[in-house]
Amino acid sequence: MRKAVVLVSGGLDSATVLAMACAQGYACYALSFDYGQRHSAELEAAGRVARVGGAVEHRVIRLDLSAIGGSALTDAAIAVPETPEEGIPVTYVPARNTVFLSVALGWAEVLDARDIFIGVNAVDYSGYPDCRPAFVEAFERLANLATKVGVEGDGFKVQAPLIELTKAEIIRRGVELGVDYAQTVTCYQADAEGRACGRCDACRLRAQGFAGAGIADPTRYQPQAE
Amino acid sequence: MRKAVVLVSGGLDSATVLAMACAQGYACYALSFDYGQRHSAELEAAGRVARVGGAVEHRVIRLDLSAIGGSALTDAAIAVPETPEEGIPVTYVPARNTVFLSVALGWAEVLDARDIFIGVNAVDYSGYPDCRPAFVEAFERLANLATKVGVEGDGFKVQAPLIELTKAEIIRRGVELGVDYAQTVTCYQADAEGRACGRCDACRLRAQGFAGAGIADPTRYQPQAE
Repeated sequence: MRKAVVLVSGGLDSATVLAMACAQGYACYALSFDYGQRHSAELEAAGRVARVGGAVEHRVIRLDLSAIGGSALTDAAIAVPETPEEGIPVTYVPARNTVFLSVALGWAEVLDARDIFIGVNAVDYSGYPDCRPAFVEAFERLANLATKVGVEGDGFKVQAPLIELTKAEIIRRGVELGVDYAQTVTCYQADAEGRACGRCDACRLRAQGFAGAGIADPTRYQPQAE
Repeated sequence: MRKAVVLVSGGLDSATVLAMACAQGYACYALSFDYGQRHSAELEAAGRVARVGGAVEHRVIRLDLSAIGGSALTDAAIAVPETPEEGIPVTYVPARNTVFLSVALGWAEVLDARDIFIGVNAVDYSGYPDCRPAFVEAFERLANLATKVGVEGDGFKVQAPLIELTKAEIIRRGVELGVDYAQTVTCYQADAEGRACGRCDACRLRAQGFAGAGIADPTRYQPQAE
């Protein structure tokens, strides 16, 4: 059975990617990061998603990106915006996908896996430079220069199966594969129970995705103030 | 004053790179990793090197690479070899330089720095795929696709000034720049006081470097059993 490392954040996209990789017959090794993100609900969701999604194993790597700051997701001094922003949003974490893919590459090499799956998406997150096809291709090229396997063997493949899909298409595909999106947390400022704010960019895109797919939104929202 | 992020391990090579970057007029931000390496002497040396070497700031990022294993440097179950190995040595840490450069890239973006310095060397560490010029070039290319600055601005430069130098040449250059190599720790299995074993590959290459440079070796060695 071919092995794959699958980056699992606890969100909707990576839950779908995990289901797609399992459906393709990979033995999936789920990888998450405790990177100083604002809430632990995301990591708890990652654990549920990995378990329910059929991952062979789930590892959480501690990596304190808040030590370098620069993002609303890791720096408590920067507020999460509740209206859409122009250009690259403050929720962008500098070099995050590069860092995550690098560690995934190291684990893939140790496991003797050749495939790394990541749920990046160029449609909804067009403001994030590290969600574009050119980035994924450049990382794959790097991976095959950086490692034993890349240099001596048959090489790594970085798979980003959502990259050209809309949120509605992602959700439709996941529902077909049996993904339970109630287990996932997308919100940038979820509460301790994983309930969503309903106001941040991530919540907005998610809600639009369910509406666009014509599928009832299973998201649990925080009680709203009057 | 131009800013640079400089990867500082506490070893001889990165101490030299820091001196070179400072000599070129960069304001240097030193970055080290607590990545599950076997001994803390290396990190203490990194702190000394950054301070003595004139870094503006020194940050240590915790990142538990021992969670993925696969190397004698992070996995206590794999012995550090004391005779030269064929091919890629067991002290190779999967994707380590890729991970370190990725975090350096994130910090550089936050600092508004454009240069990242790394002390990789293709001559003495020819067994490590992530120490070759093609790797450094591929990372620079990736950096300029992965980030705001790369996409919108004038781009990042990854500088590896030691890449084609022998150990003796590195030491001569460092001594010219006033590097105090007694502050550095190279050994893969240094003791708590930072004293070297004198037997591992890293010790051997370092001792040969001082001999080749015709410079007295300031390394402190562990007392040897009779």
